[in-house]
Amino acid sequence: MKNNDLSRRKFLQSSSFGAVSVLIPSIKTGYTRDEMKGMEREGKIPGNISKWDIDTPALLLDMDAFERNLKKMSEYCRKNNISFRPHTKTHKSPIISKMQVSSGSIGICTAKVSEAEVMVKGGVGDILITSPVISSYKIKRMMELRKQTSGLMVVLDNPRNIQDLSDASVSNKLKLDVLVDINPPGMDRTGIQPGKPAVELAETVIKSEGLRFRGIQAYAGNMQHVHGFEERRKRNLKCMETAAETKRMIEKEGIEVEIFSGGGTGTYNIDNYVQGFTDVQVGSYIFMDVQYLAIGGKDFSDDYYGDFEPSLTVLTTAISQPVKGRITTDAGIKSFAMDGPKPVLKDITGVSYGIRGDEHG
Amino acid sequence: MKNNDLSRRKFLQSSSFGAVSVLIPSIKTGYTRDEMKGMEREGKIPGNISKWDIDTPALLLDMDAFERNLKKMSEYCRKNNISFRPHTKTHKSPIISKMQVSSGSIGICTAKVSEAEVMVKGGVGDILITSPVISSYKIKRMMELRKQTSGLMVVLDNPRNIQDLSDASVSNKLKLDVLVDINPPGMDRTGIQPGKPAVELAETVIKSEGLRFRGIQAYAGNMQHVHGFEERRKRNLKCMETAAETKRMIEKEGIEVEIFSGGGTGTYNIDNYVQGFTDVQVGSYIFMDVQYLAIGGKDFSDDYYGDFEPSLTVLTTAISQPVKGRITTDAGIKSFAMDGPKPVLKDITGVSYGIRGDEHG
Repeated sequence: MKNNDLSRRKFLQSSSFGAVSVLIPSIKTGYTRDEMKGMEREGKIPGNISKWDIDTPALLLDMDAFERNLKKMSEYCRKNNISFRPHTKTHKSPIISKMQVSSGSIGICTAKVSEAEVMVKGGVGDILITSPVISSYKIKRMMELRKQTSGLMVVLDNPRNIQDLSDASVSNKLKLDVLVDINPPGMDRTGIQPGKPAVELAETVIKSEGLRFRGIQAYAGNMQHVHGFEERRKRNLKCMETAAETKRMIEKEGIEVEIFSGGGTGTYNIDNYVQGFTDVQVGSYIFMDVQYLAIGGKDFSDDYYGDFEPSLTVLTTAISQPVKGRITTDAGIKSFAMDGPKPVLKDITGVSYGIRGDEHG
Repeated sequence: MKNNDLSRRKFLQSSSFGAVSVLIPSIKTGYTRDEMKGMEREGKIPGNISKWDIDTPALLLDMDAFERNLKKMSEYCRKNNISFRPHTKTHKSPIISKMQVSSGSIGICTAKVSEAEVMVKGGVGDILITSPVISSYKIKRMMELRKQTSGLMVVLDNPRNIQDLSDASVSNKLKLDVLVDINPPGMDRTGIQPGKPAVELAETVIKSEGLRFRGIQAYAGNMQHVHGFEERRKRNLKCMETAAETKRMIEKEGIEVEIFSGGGTGTYNIDNYVQGFTDVQVGSYIFMDVQYLAIGGKDFSDDYYGDFEPSLTVLTTAISQPVKGRITTDAGIKSFAMDGPKPVLKDITGVSYGIRGDEHG
């Protein structure tokens, strides 16, 4: 972490990350959370904090693994001549964003205006909002933010939105940087069709008074979890080629396409082979998760993606044993992601973890 | 709402419910949220707010339906001579808790200490914590809370916890009211086995120095969603009979069992037929949800539970149309419950709603 201007100590002191994360350098003697908070206030960070004294359920971040993940992504991108623009919907924390920027990223991504507001307030200025911003209320908020940072960019995928954003920019006497969002085959979440429709949209941006065309985004989220590296590589390259071809078509019209952004943790080491691709929107690599571990990696089997290490865990307390063979804990729906596989136990085998209500596992 | 000391106006003004809920008396002219906040501060609540001016995704509460749900539960319990002790994990809002208490409840339930802290701070004093409180840190926090309200009760299900809670009570010079938590057949989340083990635990409580035995809890969560009223009625009565029998066994030992608490929205009109049952821990009835609507009701078909009305909806904005036949909205994983069926569209047919990521539907 020599490249980072944020020390572990600052990380722990940061109120923006609050009570959610707790640093555990080693497990020896114990402090209560109140004592820790007190010591934090006084600038005396304890050297040894016991897991046993942490109130549960608690989200724990293994700083060693986290820093290795930061470093590994940074080094891969540097060696392979692409940039990375981490997606911060993974953590929503300005202090982690700053660590990512310090590790070499060219900026960050947010999914929406409110996330970008938090980042600007937290001191991060180079932000790409990766979904179209549509309603007049959201556009107004985004313009307020743009006044605070010229590094704000947003994607768009239809002519009406170009008009709305351009009008808002003109009335605020500024130029807003935008990317044309392209819908990669099969993704179908946001974005205009690649090819001619996208080229026409880029031309409409160029003609608009208030916008500055910076490039394209093509997020193939459907490629991120394709099982097995070789299968993922083939399918992702084919899928992203439609966007690469669109880029060439736009350039043929004499329009500079400075940015070609997209991809994620699942394709970070594939997207750099896409022609003209500039930066990868990696998010999950800092924490990793059970779902990603199963997709298979280049230097691993088709069932294990060991490129990055799981660094985020949930600490829970057993509160009851209603019947033999089952223990009930205090971590349920409210403590875990509910859109993926079941939680996996760390360092315990022969036991499975199920979720049994809002507050029980 | 004549019985409630909390007006709609106070509800809207309450900062504890914050930006999450918005009152929509009717849809005519529009105010932005900022304007609404301004008018709130000045005490001028607008009579007409347009849905079109609400920032999305937004959680909307239909106050008419919500108040009818409050009233219906209150009337049912009054007429059928049982009490209700609403479970506030449904909303976590002190102001809604107060409306439930005003509608006639004998107190409220919380799932854990931190929820109880919020309620006490918000002015609600009669609280049952429905899961065992185990760790020394949590017990300490609960004792601090007990000093603020003598109406605090907690369940327990093992002798070690009796000792811990009693010791903490003694050292704080107070008596803590407790219920013995019984594990209904097939539930297996928390609770001691019904019958002799539960009787012995009650006796241990009686002998303890710091605790006061108030009764039993038997939460048959596994009965709440049994499909079809008649099937649910039969199975729930059989399941709860084990707790009723345990209650009689404890009373046979000369121990008064003042409270016999349990049940929920799915069995509120069944639990009052369980011998000795005192109060039902209804939670979902105020908002209802798609999952509950499918369980079937006494006066309805086996596929429709019309006892209470859905009052809580999510307002979302269409932000893109990537392909024909599909519209992408701004409400995804972070805007919906992820442990039940897919969201259902209000007043729109022929369309289904799927979740496509953290911020997209």
